[in-house]
Amino acid sequence: MPQSLDEVRYELALANRMVAHEGVLDAFGHVSMRHPGDPNRYLLSRSRSPELVEPGDILEFDLDSEPVAPPTVRLYGERVIHGEIYKARPDVTAVCHHHAAAFMPYCVSGEEVVPVYHLGAVIGAKAPFWDQRDDFGDTNLLVIEPEEGASLAKALGPHWVVVMRRHGATVAGRTLQEVVFRTIYSCRNAEYLTQAKLIGIPSPLNPREAERAAEYNLAAGPVSRAWEYWSMRLAKAGGTPPRATKSTRSGARSGARSAAARSKSPRAAKKTAKKGRR
Amino acid sequence: MPQSLDEVRYELALANRMVAHEGVLDAFGHVSMRHPGDPNRYLLSRSRSPELVEPGDILEFDLDSEPVAPPTVRLYGERVIHGEIYKARPDVTAVCHHHAAAFMPYCVSGEEVVPVYHLGAVIGAKAPFWDQRDDFGDTNLLVIEPEEGASLAKALGPHWVVVMRRHGATVAGRTLQEVVFRTIYSCRNAEYLTQAKLIGIPSPLNPREAERAAEYNLAAGPVSRAWEYWSMRLAKAGGTPPRATKSTRSGARSGARSAAARSKSPRAAKKTAKKGRR
Amino acid sequence: MPQSLDEVRYELALANRMVAHEGVLDAFGHVSMRHPGDPNRYLLSRSRSPELVEPGDILEFDLDSEPVAPPTVRLYGERVIHGEIYKARPDVTAVCHHHAAAFMPYCVSGEEVVPVYHLGAVIGAKAPFWDQRDDFGDTNLLVIEPEEGASLAKALGPHWVVVMRRHGATVAGRTLQEVVFRTIYSCRNAEYLTQAKLIGIPSPLNPREAERAAEYNLAAGPVSRAWEYWSMRLAKAGGTPPRATKSTRSGARSGARSAAARSKSPRAAKKTAKKGRR
Amino acid sequence: MPQSLDEVRYELALANRMVAHEGVLDAFGHVSMRHPGDPNRYLLSRSRSPELVEPGDILEFDLDSEPVAPPTVRLYGERVIHGEIYKARPDVTAVCHHHAAAFMPYCVSGEEVVPVYHLGAVIGAKAPFWDQRDDFGDTNLLVIEPEEGASLAKALGPHWVVVMRRHGATVAGRTLQEVVFRTIYSCRNAEYLTQAKLIGIPSPLNPREAERAAEYNLAAGPVSRAWEYWSMRLAKAGGTPPRATKSTRSGARSGARSAAARSKSPRAAKKTAKKGRR
Repeated sequence: MPQSLDEVRYELALANRMVAHEGVLDAFGHVSMRHPGDPNRYLLSRSRSPELVEPGDILEFDLDSEPVAPPTVRLYGERVIHGEIYKARPDVTAVCHHHAAAFMPYCVSGEEVVPVYHLGAVIGAKAPFWDQRDDFGDTNLLVIEPEEGASLAKALGPHWVVVMRRHGATVAGRTLQEVVFRTIYSCRNAEYLTQAKLIGIPSPLNPREAERAAEYNLAAGPVSRAWEYWSMRLAKAGGTPPRATKSTRSGARSGARSAAARSKSPRAAKKTAKKGRR
Repeated sequence: MPQSLDEVRYELALANRMVAHEGVLDAFGHVSMRHPGDPNRYLLSRSRSPELVEPGDILEFDLDSEPVAPPTVRLYGERVIHGEIYKARPDVTAVCHHHAAAFMPYCVSGEEVVPVYHLGAVIGAKAPFWDQRDDFGDTNLLVIEPEEGASLAKALGPHWVVVMRRHGATVAGRTLQEVVFRTIYSCRNAEYLTQAKLIGIPSPLNPREAERAAEYNLAAGPVSRAWEYWSMRLAKAGGTPPRATKSTRSGARSGARSAAARSKSPRAAKKTAKKGRR
Repeated sequence: MPQSLDEVRYELALANRMVAHEGVLDAFGHVSMRHPGDPNRYLLSRSRSPELVEPGDILEFDLDSEPVAPPTVRLYGERVIHGEIYKARPDVTAVCHHHAAAFMPYCVSGEEVVPVYHLGAVIGAKAPFWDQRDDFGDTNLLVIEPEEGASLAKALGPHWVVVMRRHGATVAGRTLQEVVFRTIYSCRNAEYLTQAKLIGIPSPLNPREAERAAEYNLAAGPVSRAWEYWSMRLAKAGGTPPRATKSTRSGARSGARSAAARSKSPRAAKKTAKKGRR
Repeated sequence: MPQSLDEVRYELALANRMVAHEGVLDAFGHVSMRHPGDPNRYLLSRSRSPELVEPGDILEFDLDSEPVAPPTVRLYGERVIHGEIYKARPDVTAVCHHHAAAFMPYCVSGEEVVPVYHLGAVIGAKAPFWDQRDDFGDTNLLVIEPEEGASLAKALGPHWVVVMRRHGATVAGRTLQEVVFRTIYSCRNAEYLTQAKLIGIPSPLNPREAERAAEYNLAAGPVSRAWEYWSMRLAKAGGTPPRATKSTRSGARSGARSAAARSKSPRAAKKTAKKGRR
């Protein structure tokens, strides 16, 4: 992998901002990436709205979702979503967890999200539905404990999108660009499916169509064309992430420290860090 | 309370602009806050669209919604919504009254707004419906008289959101940040509920899920993460309120006076002030 | 009327841009105003998208919708909508004609637009439906000929909003600010009505509620608060109209001439002018 | 045709950006134009999101959709849509292919898009539905091979808009301005039709109304008014295409080369170019 870790952190910050800017993420949700040099680690921001993530916010975690360096900042409560999927799926290199408006009617009604157009084929043949109650009964609807993450990863199985009851969805990809592409176009697909249900009876792509269209659209050409487009839109809105400054270049830890310095609740962050999970 | 009153006024102006910028308020609606130093007073802007409110526009009112200092500016007609809720609910520190598109279908059809996803749990188990006709027959649908405000506060009861027939909704919170968070995410919840009704049969969170998810999401971490996000969005749109200038720093009264100086209809404002309520 | 005609032209350009910026008008539609000094004339822009109208584009027409000065620019084809309403309704001082998305489902299905919330009460008790075929059979669906405008004005009758089959709507007001307010809030009302129909059975305000709520909301306070808000939004988007330059100050004619100089198709404009109506 | 080829390329880049900025195109979709000096050629951008297209990106193709000069850049996979329509329809001078949200419910459900209001009349009396399976069975849902493009052109027949099963739509016009106008207003029409279906029973314009309204609205006046409006909106958003620089003025090839220099994957592009079709 020729990219420096600094470059990777920049790309991941960009991905978080891009997906947020396209309306899929808001104050919540996150995009992560497997560590390019160590498959037993992954990269994820400290707890912060995705449209604000900077390269210096990106920290390293092991696959149990424990931070590699002692954190001095607040961490996302739901990072086990990422860790458990990387553990269960060696072919997955990037993960996005979101609560997009497009998916919510499906999370809330239990109706199935099926691919209905060529770009929606990136969902794959099936998007399984995860009902947390099957394993855990009544919960706070979040995915905080490792076993909750593992249950979700199991529900995802060999697929690429899992719909989470009354919560949102989680999307996996073989590359960072792919997970961004799949996240955004699966939302578009869900929107069109909803609209089509209002005026007629949509039927899903058949398996052969779904497979062929996914293969075409997930090639480097379409995926990088879309990446350029979303980058441009983000840039026009003044949302491009800053390049890491010298002081944050020496690694995740110093980046985290400088982030902590900016944080308004260092006490809360410390308490969190001690608890090891929040 | 370590914050200066100037800082509080700034935060309240920011909250008004933030909620408006997220599409919940438009030309109308308002966010208020109980006075941090005197539980028998509250802070609310002079009559002005919330996205325009400046720290110097914020005035003090007693719980009968009378201005503490003789006003030289026009006041909101519906301020009793705030005063009567502060009177009835000592645990409430901030109130938002709005007419958001998300709630209107419920205000107009009488269908119930129920929490359907983890962030929607901030609504609480129930959002009561207030039909003004029960107490007052045919009205202008507004909440102007103290007894109208008291009737609304009674309908709210121990809950956090009250849906107002053919009018809008009013949201209460234990902190200013909480009322902003609840206002915005209860709107998101209503939108998803509407969409879910179009494609299937949504069922509400059960009480245990609602309670647990609300507790998690109303903790300091999620609430301040969202506050930072909405602040950033407002700032990018050039909407951050100005800091109070020296001339308006000496208190609400001088703030009001300087606001009056900018007002285009001082005569109308005076007439209003004399009537004591408008 | 203390306002200079220059000031009036500026306000009318502002109203056109404001209503467009709020999403009611697009490339088409227009706002006009009765001449403040001569009730037998009205002011309307040359043919140009409303969000582009400048004070120097505003021309004078008599109530037969003929330009007072020989035009050197293209005129709106549908200006008889304005002229015939001013002729039929001496109490009307401003008119807006639009094709807003909010109204289209009603124009196309014939379902009735009824007021369903306090601000929607500005529609009035009834918004009549005009079906051009009753008087003219199959047409191009536009309102070009004086008799077409007169038929529309007759359908409007004593009301404030008329829904036009497969075309759009026309809104009247007693002041320019009122017509802007009614135009925007009648669109909001139509949107909420549509949404409410999807999830339940909305019923209209009863006549007493409608009357009282309209009276309250059409007072100077609410109407000017909203005007300030929409002006601010337009200004933030860089859309405030330019002030008339010296060369266009001497009257409508010179304004029109300078507009013609900027026009890209002077030949087409001349042909139009000769035909007297386009 | 007095326009220089440079000017034509600029206008085509502008059209691509305009239609994208109005929400019809996103990362995908494209607008082309028949070569003004040679009816056996057409102009289309290299593979790039339409909102990013620059005059220097515009290349020349023959009606078999082969590039006139050996390409050094990636080409659109679906350019046969354009070539085959120009081949089959000598009266067509511009083509837009899109996947707009407005059309998707129809692509997915098979319900018919019919004109329901005066501006929607630009669709024409009928928008045929193309189901690729009739000729080709299960495909990747794209239009890559010349025979696929020919099949689509045949489905379009003498009409102006063809709806493509689970894919999108293709729109033809007699001028570039007309195709932009028809593309945008046919989307608006589809949106209003969908909304009208939710609250009532819309019926299409009758053939005489459709014909008369289309004739009126496709005249130079309305079409250029809308063009000015969409240009202004694009300009305000900072999206106007750059004028071709000196180095790209000498023709499509050098433009393509300079574009290639900016491209991030020249290797991929070369491979594409060798394959002749991608």
